[in-house]
Amino acid sequence: MASKTDLINGTPRFVNIGVDSFAKDMDAFTTGAHVQWKPPANGDARLGRLLACMHADDVPGSLGGKIAAANKIALEKVVSAQPTLVDILPAREVLADMDENTYLHAGPPLNWDTMCGSMRGGMMGALIFEGRANSPEEAERLLKSGAIRFAPCHSRDAAGPMAGIISPSMPLMVMENKADGKRAYCSMNEGWGRTLRFGAYDEAVVKRLHWMKDTLAKGLRAVIGRMGGIDIKVLISQALQMGDECHNRDISATNLFFKLVTPQLLKCEQLSGQELTEIVDFLGQHEHFFLNLAMAASKVSLLSADNIPYSTLVTVMARNGYEVGIRVSGLGESWFTAKAEVADGLYFAGYSPADANPDIGDSAITETGGIGAFAMAAAPAIVQFVGGSTEDAFRYTKEMYRITIGRNNNYKIPNLGFAGTPTGIDIAKVLDANIMPVINTGIAHKEAGHGLVGAGVVPAPRQCFEKALAAFEERYAEDFSRFA
Amino acid sequence: MASKTDLINGTPRFVNIGVDSFAKDMDAFTTGAHVQWKPPANGDARLGRLLACMHADDVPGSLGGKIAAANKIALEKVVSAQPTLVDILPAREVLADMDENTYLHAGPPLNWDTMCGSMRGGMMGALIFEGRANSPEEAERLLKSGAIRFAPCHSRDAAGPMAGIISPSMPLMVMENKADGKRAYCSMNEGWGRTLRFGAYDEAVVKRLHWMKDTLAKGLRAVIGRMGGIDIKVLISQALQMGDECHNRDISATNLFFKLVTPQLLKCEQLSGQELTEIVDFLGQHEHFFLNLAMAASKVSLLSADNIPYSTLVTVMARNGYEVGIRVSGLGESWFTAKAEVADGLYFAGYSPADANPDIGDSAITETGGIGAFAMAAAPAIVQFVGGSTEDAFRYTKEMYRITIGRNNNYKIPNLGFAGTPTGIDIAKVLDANIMPVINTGIAHKEAGHGLVGAGVVPAPRQCFEKALAAFEERYAEDFSRFA
Repeated sequence: MASKTDLINGTPRFVNIGVDSFAKDMDAFTTGAHVQWKPPANGDARLGRLLACMHADDVPGSLGGKIAAANKIALEKVVSAQPTLVDILPAREVLADMDENTYLHAGPPLNWDTMCGSMRGGMMGALIFEGRANSPEEAERLLKSGAIRFAPCHSRDAAGPMAGIISPSMPLMVMENKADGKRAYCSMNEGWGRTLRFGAYDEAVVKRLHWMKDTLAKGLRAVIGRMGGIDIKVLISQALQMGDECHNRDISATNLFFKLVTPQLLKCEQLSGQELTEIVDFLGQHEHFFLNLAMAASKVSLLSADNIPYSTLVTVMARNGYEVGIRVSGLGESWFTAKAEVADGLYFAGYSPADANPDIGDSAITETGGIGAFAMAAAPAIVQFVGGSTEDAFRYTKEMYRITIGRNNNYKIPNLGFAGTPTGIDIAKVLDANIMPVINTGIAHKEAGHGLVGAGVVPAPRQCFEKALAAFEERYAEDFSRFA
Repeated sequence: MASKTDLINGTPRFVNIGVDSFAKDMDAFTTGAHVQWKPPANGDARLGRLLACMHADDVPGSLGGKIAAANKIALEKVVSAQPTLVDILPAREVLADMDENTYLHAGPPLNWDTMCGSMRGGMMGALIFEGRANSPEEAERLLKSGAIRFAPCHSRDAAGPMAGIISPSMPLMVMENKADGKRAYCSMNEGWGRTLRFGAYDEAVVKRLHWMKDTLAKGLRAVIGRMGGIDIKVLISQALQMGDECHNRDISATNLFFKLVTPQLLKCEQLSGQELTEIVDFLGQHEHFFLNLAMAASKVSLLSADNIPYSTLVTVMARNGYEVGIRVSGLGESWFTAKAEVADGLYFAGYSPADANPDIGDSAITETGGIGAFAMAAAPAIVQFVGGSTEDAFRYTKEMYRITIGRNNNYKIPNLGFAGTPTGIDIAKVLDANIMPVINTGIAHKEAGHGLVGAGVVPAPRQCFEKALAAFEERYAEDFSRFA
C-alpha cells in the first residue's frame, strides 16, 4: 500500500501511516513510504469498540466464535445454492400477500412523496399496463390517492432492476434453489432504451410489456417445461470466463441463454410461426436479457443464507433512488438505510450528472451475491460502459476480497488465476477495512418518462453498515454485555 | 528481464547477461542480476550480419528504409482489411486450378509418403465423401496410385484446419476483403470429436459432410444473401472483448454468429421446417464454428499484404503434420520449412504425447494475422484447454509485441488496457529477439481414423525464419551487396 514514494526505490527513512496531508512535507525532506490506512469504523470510538468485541475471542461459544460459525454456514448456503429457472408465472400467482392494488418497487420501503421521477414513471406505466388507468395523468391521480399499496420487491422474495416495478399480472421468472427448494422472482428484461424500469411509460413501452406477458412468457415457459428447468448457475460460471460480470455486462450470458433456448423454441408446438419469429427476434437483439436471471439467481442464493442468528453476512443491498438499504442475515428483515448518491460514471451524448437520478434498483443483489462489480476483474471490457480503467476493474475485485467472508469457487475469474469471486459481504469487515462494497449500475434520468442516461460505479453508503452494526449490538446485547 | 536475483532486492554487485550457467556460482558469492539474453539470430554470424545490414540504415532509399516502408504498407493492408462473408460455394467453383482429382491439404506441400496418419485419414474420408471410393481401403489404393493431385490450401488462397482437406465438391465459405475485393476460402467447421479434419473417416463423419453440403450450406448461403454479407471483423473485435482469442477459443464469436444468423434463418423460405431445426440444432451445439471464419478472415487480410517487395512480414504460417512452412510478403509464394514438433499441452483422458501427431493445420493463419495465441491475453480461460497459467497467456501476447510490426487497433485487448493485438510477424524481429511466434493448437492423433486427443502451445521453428532470411538476402542481393 506504499504510495507516492515507492519502497522499491530505496530504503525508506520514515513511514507515514494514514495522514495524507503529512506526505508532501516529508517527501520534500527525505525518502519515505506513505501507507494508506484509516482506523476501523473510520475512527468512530463506539463502533470501533463493537468491532473489537466481535473479534476479541474467535473461539467456539464466544461472540467471535458464534459469528464465525454463523458466517461459515451462511457463506456455504450462498455458495452451494443451485439456482434453476423453473417457471414463468404472473406475480399475483406466485408472490405472497399480493393483491390487485399491490405494486412493488426496488430498494427499501418508501412512499409516493419520496419516490423519484423514474420510479413514479414506472408506477404510472404499470397502472396503464394493468388497465387501471388510460393516461399518465389518470395513473398519477390514482397513485396519489392512496389506493395503491407500495412495497419493496425484496419484501416478497423478488428483485427488480432500476425502478423495479412489479405489478399483479406481470410475468415473473421463478428461480428455485434446487439445494433447498426456496424460490425467488424477477421480471423479464425489456431491453435497452425507453423501458418501464427507467421510468418510461409511453405506448411502445406498454405494448412491449403486453407482448412479453402474452408471447415471450408463453414461449420461454414452454421451453423451460421441455428442458425441465434451466441451470442458471452453470451459465453464470461460463459467462465469467467470457468477459461478463453478470450485472451490467451480460452479453455472453445472454448469448449462452439464447443458444440454449432457441433450438428448443423451434420445437415448441404451442407457438405459431409468427410468435416464434417475434421471440427469436427479440432475444436475438437483446444484450442484457440475462441480467434479470442473474438477479433472481443471486436473490435465491442469498435467501437461503437469511435469518441465521449471529451472521453478519449482508443478504440484500438495494436502492430506491432515494435511499440505499441493506439487510443482514442475523438481523432478519430489518432495513438499514442511508441517502442514495449519484453514481460516478459515463453519460450518453446529451446527458450529464445533472440529469441523473440517485442510485436506484435491486440489481445490486448481484454484488451482494458475489458477482457484478465484485467480479469486475473477469470483465475489464465493462469499463468502456461504466468508466474507469482496466486497473480499476481489477482493483474493485481485489478490494472486495477484503470485505467478504470467502470465495465462490463455482464462479472463477481467469484473470486472477481462476480465483473464486469474493462472496458474502461482512458488515464487520466492511467497517474494519473502511472499504465499502462497490456496485456498478445503469443511471436513470431523474424525471419520469425518460430512460437510461449513462452507467457508472458507486459505493454502498457507509451509514448503512454503521446502522446495521449498531442494530447487531442491540440484537445480541447479551453477548456484547460480557465485554462491558 | 532480471531473473533469479531480483534487482529490487538490493543493489546488484554484478550483472550477468545471457550465460545461465554462470548464474549459480555468482549467486553463491554475492548479490547480482541475471539478464536473459541471446545474441541476434542465436549467435549465427552470417545471419547476424544480414540482420545488421537490414537495420544499419533506416532512412528512405536504404535497405532498412525500403524494408520499413514496405512493412508499413503491408501492416496497413492487414489492419485495414474488411473481411466479410459473402457466399458459400463448392470448392470446384471458386478455387483456381481445381479439378476432380485435386485435393487440398494443410501446410506446405508434401506427398503421400510424408503425409501423417490424420492427413491420410482425412484424404480417405474425402474420397469416400466425393463418391470416388466405397471403402477406406479403396480410397487408400486410389491415393497411393498417383491419380490424385495434392496441393496446399494456401496455394489456392484457402486455409483448412488440422488436416485441412478440401475436396472438389466441399462447400467453402467465401471471405471477401471489402477494402480491395480479394477473396479467401475456408471449409465450414464440423464440430468437436470424430471429424474429417482430425483424420476420422467413418460413416458418421461422411454423413455429416453431406449434410453440411446439402443443408447447412444452403441455409447459411440464404442468410448471407438476406443480410448482404456478414462483417466478420466486427465479430472478431467483439469476441476479443468476450474472452476469445479466435483460434482455439471461439465460443463467444460462435455465439455471436449464432445470434446474428438464427433470427434470419427463421425467415428463409427456401428452408423446410426440418432443415431449419437441423441447422439451428447443429449451430446451437457448436462451440467452435467461428474458427474457420476467423481463419478465412485472417487469410484474406494477409493476402492483401502479399507480394510487397522488401516486406519482411510473414503472410503464412502453416503445418502439414510433417513440416511447418512460412511465407513472407517480399518473397512471394516460396515456402520456408522445418520439421514440425509435437505441441506442449494437455491431453484428454486416455491419451498421451506418444499418441500425438506433430503440429498440423492452417489455423496458425490466425496467429499470422495477429489473433489466436497472439491475443491470448484477451482469453486467459483458454489455458484450461491448452495448458499453462493465466500469466502464460499474458506473457505470450506481451512477447509477440516484440516480434511484430505493429498493432491492430480494431482488435483491442481489455486486459492490456485495450491495446491492439500484436500484428504482422517480422522475420527480422523474430531473429533479432530470438522469440519465435507462438501458436496454440488442437492436437490430432498420429494415426488415421482417430480424432482430437488434446491441445497445446507450440512455437514456430526457428529454421523457417533462418531460411527465409537467407532467401531474403538472395532475393535482394543487390541491396545487401552494398554492405560487402
